[in-house]
Amino acid sequence: MNIALDAMGGDHAPEAIVAGAVEAARIYGVTVSLVGIPEVIEAELKKHDAKGLNLPIVPASQVIEMDEKPAAAVRAKPDSSMVVGCKLVKRNEADAFVSAGNTGGALAAGILHIGRIKGILRPALIGPFPTLKGACMILDIGANADVRPEHIQQFAIMGSIYAREVIGVERPTVRILSNGEEAGKGNQLVIDSFKLLEQTPSINFEGNIESKEIPTGLADVVVTDGFTGNIFVKTAETTARLMSQVITEEIKKSPWAMLGALLARNSLRRVRERMDDSHYGGAVLLGLSSVVIVAHGRSNAFAVRHAIRVAKQSVEQDILAKIQRGIAALHSEPAPAAVESSPTG
Amino acid sequence: MNIALDAMGGDHAPEAIVAGAVEAARIYGVTVSLVGIPEVIEAELKKHDAKGLNLPIVPASQVIEMDEKPAAAVRAKPDSSMVVGCKLVKRNEADAFVSAGNTGGALAAGILHIGRIKGILRPALIGPFPTLKGACMILDIGANADVRPEHIQQFAIMGSIYAREVIGVERPTVRILSNGEEAGKGNQLVIDSFKLLEQTPSINFEGNIESKEIPTGLADVVVTDGFTGNIFVKTAETTARLMSQVITEEIKKSPWAMLGALLARNSLRRVRERMDDSHYGGAVLLGLSSVVIVAHGRSNAFAVRHAIRVAKQSVEQDILAKIQRGIAALHSEPAPAAVESSPTG
Repeated sequence: MNIALDAMGGDHAPEAIVAGAVEAARIYGVTVSLVGIPEVIEAELKKHDAKGLNLPIVPASQVIEMDEKPAAAVRAKPDSSMVVGCKLVKRNEADAFVSAGNTGGALAAGILHIGRIKGILRPALIGPFPTLKGACMILDIGANADVRPEHIQQFAIMGSIYAREVIGVERPTVRILSNGEEAGKGNQLVIDSFKLLEQTPSINFEGNIESKEIPTGLADVVVTDGFTGNIFVKTAETTARLMSQVITEEIKKSPWAMLGALLARNSLRRVRERMDDSHYGGAVLLGLSSVVIVAHGRSNAFAVRHAIRVAKQSVEQDILAKIQRGIAALHSEPAPAAVESSPTG
Repeated sequence: MNIALDAMGGDHAPEAIVAGAVEAARIYGVTVSLVGIPEVIEAELKKHDAKGLNLPIVPASQVIEMDEKPAAAVRAKPDSSMVVGCKLVKRNEADAFVSAGNTGGALAAGILHIGRIKGILRPALIGPFPTLKGACMILDIGANADVRPEHIQQFAIMGSIYAREVIGVERPTVRILSNGEEAGKGNQLVIDSFKLLEQTPSINFEGNIESKEIPTGLADVVVTDGFTGNIFVKTAETTARLMSQVITEEIKKSPWAMLGALLARNSLRRVRERMDDSHYGGAVLLGLSSVVIVAHGRSNAFAVRHAIRVAKQSVEQDILAKIQRGIAALHSEPAPAAVESSPTG
């Protein structure tokens, strides 16, 4: 197994990226192809004991920065680590591509240089949201701002397969994000998608979900358009960060409160761990004909390692072939009973 | 000034509602007409020293419960406190209506029994979001799941007038909620609305805003469709509640952490105060031909009192006439310079 890794992308690149690659190569026994500027990568590798590990360097002279316009940057920088990484998997020289760089750039490079699975109308970005029971997988969280009900239906199928094969949920429940729980609540897209999801036998659709029910673990998979999903994810992140900031500010005003925070430090560490989703390995761009993982820009070595683990697991479980079969079944088998009894949808 | 108050609506009705009415009548010198079941209201009033205060009871025999389907409930319960309260303002027997009951019910009763300002296409629900500088006013947070750019344009005008006249921001800045900051980012509704907002001289439009920028105070008014706005508000509330819950759970596991929380209790109280928006008086249904305030279902007496204050202030500032003039100006004065120099939009 060979995972291509964008060594240049992310807030903590190249240090954290190379460190994560070393951990992953050691722990999971995979080859990690480090794509980027060779001298930079070599200098980082020297900091680690990487003897016996498979960490080849694949040269790429350009870097797509975090604040560049995605589509334009992908076209303007054909020798960037992102484009070179995507081309590696396209040519079957690597099994999957992982980047913690510019999300839009990874999307654009993946769509342009790897292409879609046959039958997939729109690839979607799927990501985890922490719940009291573990995590809920949400898609689309940002690949498609405008979608139609048939796209949402494909998101539901892809999300169910991912939750089952990678997260390990036996019979994942699917709900659609709405502004009310009852059937009939929602905007026109939700109302139309609801009807289509009800008629999709290969998924376990249970209706609408409000954002307030997501943290309770009511659904294993939540589908939505990429505009709403992106706002949901960013709003949750922002609120958590705002609250942490306000708590820190207020505690710093009082020596007693600072002593209190010291006494509670182990509890506060566990809070951070529970709110943290980095062991889920970031977001996955589902629907491309290769596995592409878009780790969070602020990924540390731990998050990069887990992104590589998710890539490995996605390849081993052959989720792309399963998605292709799931989509093909949707169009070829109109009788619900026949589809439901087929193996892994 | 006579404010009609739904004495029966809200999680803590009738106790908190009547208590808030007594406070408001005393502090602001207004008449508060308590609409609901007379015996229930009388029993609550006896708990307070309400001598000399103007707190008449207006009988209404029915109650719309928090979990009822709004439109159906409004039709099925013509003698509910919500319908009776709306009819009071429609007949000019009260100047404004305040309810902490079923939000959808208040919307439906307001639209059905009060009606819109001339020229307003869609009334919108405007509510506050706490920022590091104070609060940002967001609309629509739930009245209209599907809207068109011309609705968003009217929301921007109504929101600007509200921020100026009620919140006291001299020249409120307006932005549209999107999944990216740059012009051109967003779904089709955002992209089309952006162009229309740029051509609206009576507002101070500054472009897109991502949800992560809202808490920094970048905009005084944020416009969005009622579906996205509702999900934004509920996601923020949910995340803050989830985080509080996780913090409490973890602290309870350790006696040291519990001691720490005790030492930090004043700081934690200030955190709660800063995250609390109840002094903004809840959401206002803008665009109806009377002032209607939809306080949060969990409102306590303090929140009810402030909802009554916001109602009073909205009437005193004559914001409905200003909205009507703002909307009329939009259609009658195509020359930007002429409109911009006119007094208060």
